Amino acid sequence: MRAMGNQDLRPILAVTMGDPGGIGPEVLVKALADPARRAKARYRIFGTSGALMEACDRARIDPFWWRVEFTSDHLADAMAHDCVLIDYEPTGRRVLYPRAATTKGGDYSYRFVEDAITAAEKRPNLPVHVDGIVTAPISKQAWSMAGRKFPGHTELLARRFLAKRVAMMFEAPRLRVTLVTVHIPLLNLMHSLTIGRIFDAIDLTHLALKEQGIYRPRIAVCGLNPHAGEGGLIGDEEERLITPALNLAQHQAINANGPFPADTVFNSALEGRYDAVIAMYHDQGLIPIKLLWRDEAVNITLGLPTVRTSPDHGTAYDIAGSNRANAGSMAAAIDSAIRMVVMRRGEV
Amino acid sequence: MRAMGNQDLRPILAVTMGDPGGIGPEVLVKALADPARRAKARYRIFGTSGALMEACDRARIDPFWWRVEFTSDHLADAMAHDCVLIDYEPTGRRVLYPRAATTKGGDYSYRFVEDAITAAEKRPNLPVHVDGIVTAPISKQAWSMAGRKFPGHTELLARRFLAKRVAMMFEAPRLRVTLVTVHIPLLNLMHSLTIGRIFDAIDLTHLALKEQGIYRPRIAVCGLNPHAGEGGLIGDEEERLITPALNLAQHQAINANGPFPADTVFNSALEGRYDAVIAMYHDQGLIPIKLLWRDEAVNITLGLPTVRTSPDHGTAYDIAGSNRANAGSMAAAIDSAIRMVVMRRGEV
Repeated sequence: MRAMGNQDLRPILAVTMGDPGGIGPEVLVKALADPARRAKARYRIFGTSGALMEACDRARIDPFWWRVEFTSDHLADAMAHDCVLIDYEPTGRRVLYPRAATTKGGDYSYRFVEDAITAAEKRPNLPVHVDGIVTAPISKQAWSMAGRKFPGHTELLARRFLAKRVAMMFEAPRLRVTLVTVHIPLLNLMHSLTIGRIFDAIDLTHLALKEQGIYRPRIAVCGLNPHAGEGGLIGDEEERLITPALNLAQHQAINANGPFPADTVFNSALEGRYDAVIAMYHDQGLIPIKLLWRDEAVNITLGLPTVRTSPDHGTAYDIAGSNRANAGSMAAAIDSAIRMVVMRRGEV
Repeated sequence: MRAMGNQDLRPILAVTMGDPGGIGPEVLVKALADPARRAKARYRIFGTSGALMEACDRARIDPFWWRVEFTSDHLADAMAHDCVLIDYEPTGRRVLYPRAATTKGGDYSYRFVEDAITAAEKRPNLPVHVDGIVTAPISKQAWSMAGRKFPGHTELLARRFLAKRVAMMFEAPRLRVTLVTVHIPLLNLMHSLTIGRIFDAIDLTHLALKEQGIYRPRIAVCGLNPHAGEGGLIGDEEERLITPALNLAQHQAINANGPFPADTVFNSALEGRYDAVIAMYHDQGLIPIKLLWRDEAVNITLGLPTVRTSPDHGTAYDIAGSNRANAGSMAAAIDSAIRMVVMRRGEV
C-alpha cells in the first residue's frame, strides 16, 4: 500500500467487472494479476467479490485487492489502497452466477458503470476520483431485463457526460479504426449516415491521435460502396456524403483523405501510410481488426471528458466459468487507458 | 511443340490479355514466363503482340509463344503449338497503348473475351477448343466507350453461356469466399438480397467444392448486420432472408451454417472449421481476402459450363507499363484453372 498524496502521480483507473455471468471477472483478474501492470496505476474495481474470487480460484490467482463494501462508511478511506475492490455484494460470500443474461447481472453491471462514471466526474483531489474507466463486457439483454434502457456502455457514457458527439475507435498494434456508425441495421445507414457524423468521426479521431502525441495524424476514410463507388458508377454516397465531410475536415487543416475502397485501404494503413482509418459501419471496420488482432484490440470511446477503454469482445457466456477466456484485449485496454491518461496530463 | 492428339491430356486454357493499357499484358507474360507453369497446360493467348512484347521487354522475358494473326487462314493449324498468341493487331508491330480507358482498348479486350468464350463452346475434338478461360483485367469504362453494355466479365459470360445463376468465389491459400452480391451500391442490397440469391451462392459453392474434391463441404454464411443481427435486435434480414436460405440448403443436405457475425466468422474459417464463407456483399468478403492475400487470391466464376478464373485486381493504370505489377494473382488464377479442369475431368 502506498500513501495517497500528490507525490503519487500514477493514473487512477476505474475497472468495471461487467456482467457477473460473463467472462468479465475472469479477464479482469487475469489482466490485473500481472504485478507490473498493477504497479503502473492505481485501481478501483467495481464488481462483486463472489464472481472475482471464483475467477481467481479457477485461474489459480491470489486475490490482489483490498475489499470494501459498496455501502461501507469507510469507502473513502479504503481508496488509500492501490487496488481496491468496491464490492456490491453485501455478504462478500461467493455467489455462482448463471452463464446467461439475468436481471441481477444486468442490475449489478449497470450500477458498476454508473458509479464509475460518478467517480470520473469527481474533482481530482477527492479520494474517489478516477482518471479513466475500463469496462469489462456487459450484456445488453441483461441491462434491458434490469429495466435499463441504454443499448450499451457508449450511449450511457455519452448521456452522463452530456457528450454531443462520441465515436468508437478500435486500436490494435498496427491499426486504428474509428466507426462512423456502430450497432444499427446495415440498411439503416440510408438514414444514419450523414455528412456531420462522418465529419465528427474524422475530427474526433484527429483530436484523439493528437492527444496520443501524433503531431499531424494521417487519416484515411473508407467509401461505403464497392470500389468506393467507382467514381459514381456504384452508388452516390461517396459524392453526396463522404467527400463533403472530407472537404469540411480538410478546411480545418485535418490531414484526411479518401474515400478509398474498403477492401484495400487497410493494407495501406498497415503499410504505415495512415495513422487511422474511418469506417462507415461496424463490419467494415471490425472485420480487419478482428482478423488480424482478435485478442489484442482495444475499444476506445472518443469525445468524452474522461478516458474510457474496453476489450473488443462480449460476455462470451458460452465459455464463461471455464477459465478459457483470453485476457489479452482486457490487458491492452488497461494499458491503453494508462497511456492515454499520462498523455492527456502531459498536455496540461 | 507437341503434336496434337489424344495422347496429350493437358488442359487447354484460353488466357485473355485484358485491357492493353492496363497491367494485364505484364502479369500475363510474367505468369507464363515460368516454364513449369507452361508445361502443365497448353495455352491460347487472346491479345496483341504489341502490348505483350512491350511487357516482355520491360520484364526482360523472352517471348515464349507462337504468334498467329487472328485473321489468318492458318489459325486452326497454329493450335498444334503449345502456347499460341492469337494476335488481334494485323501488323504485329509494337503499339504503345495509353495507360487509360480507351475505345480501342475496350474494343480489343471485349473481343478477346468473346472469342475465348466461343472457343470454350467448341466441341473438345475441335482444334480451337479450350477447357477453361483465364481473364486478365478489363476496364468497364473502356468497354462502355467501345459500346459494350456489359459491366464486366461475369455478366458477359453468364449471358453467353445462358447461365441462370452465377456467383463469384474468391480462393486464397487458406480461405474461400463467395459473394451473394457484387458490384451494386451497398444500400441497394435492400432490393437485391433475396432468399434465392443467398441460396444460389450456397448451392453453387457446395457444387464447386465437391468438384474440387471436397466430399462434404462445410459452408459458413455471414449475417448482414452487426453481430449477425443479434437475434433480431439489429435488423431482420437474418431472419427474413438468410435463415430461410440456410433452411433450403440444409434440406438439400448441404452442410451450411449461420448466419454468423461477419467480424469473427473468417477467423473460424481460417482455423479450418469451414471450407468456404458466403458473404452478403462485396466488401464483407473482399476485406478479409485482400487483407491476408493481396497478391495470391483468385476470382472464380461459379455456375458456368466451363472453368473461368481471373486475378482479383483491376487494370491498375497507375502502375501499368512500369514493370511493377505483381503477377502472383494471375499465376494463381492459371494454376487454379488447371487444377479445376483436371478435377472436372476426373468426375467424368
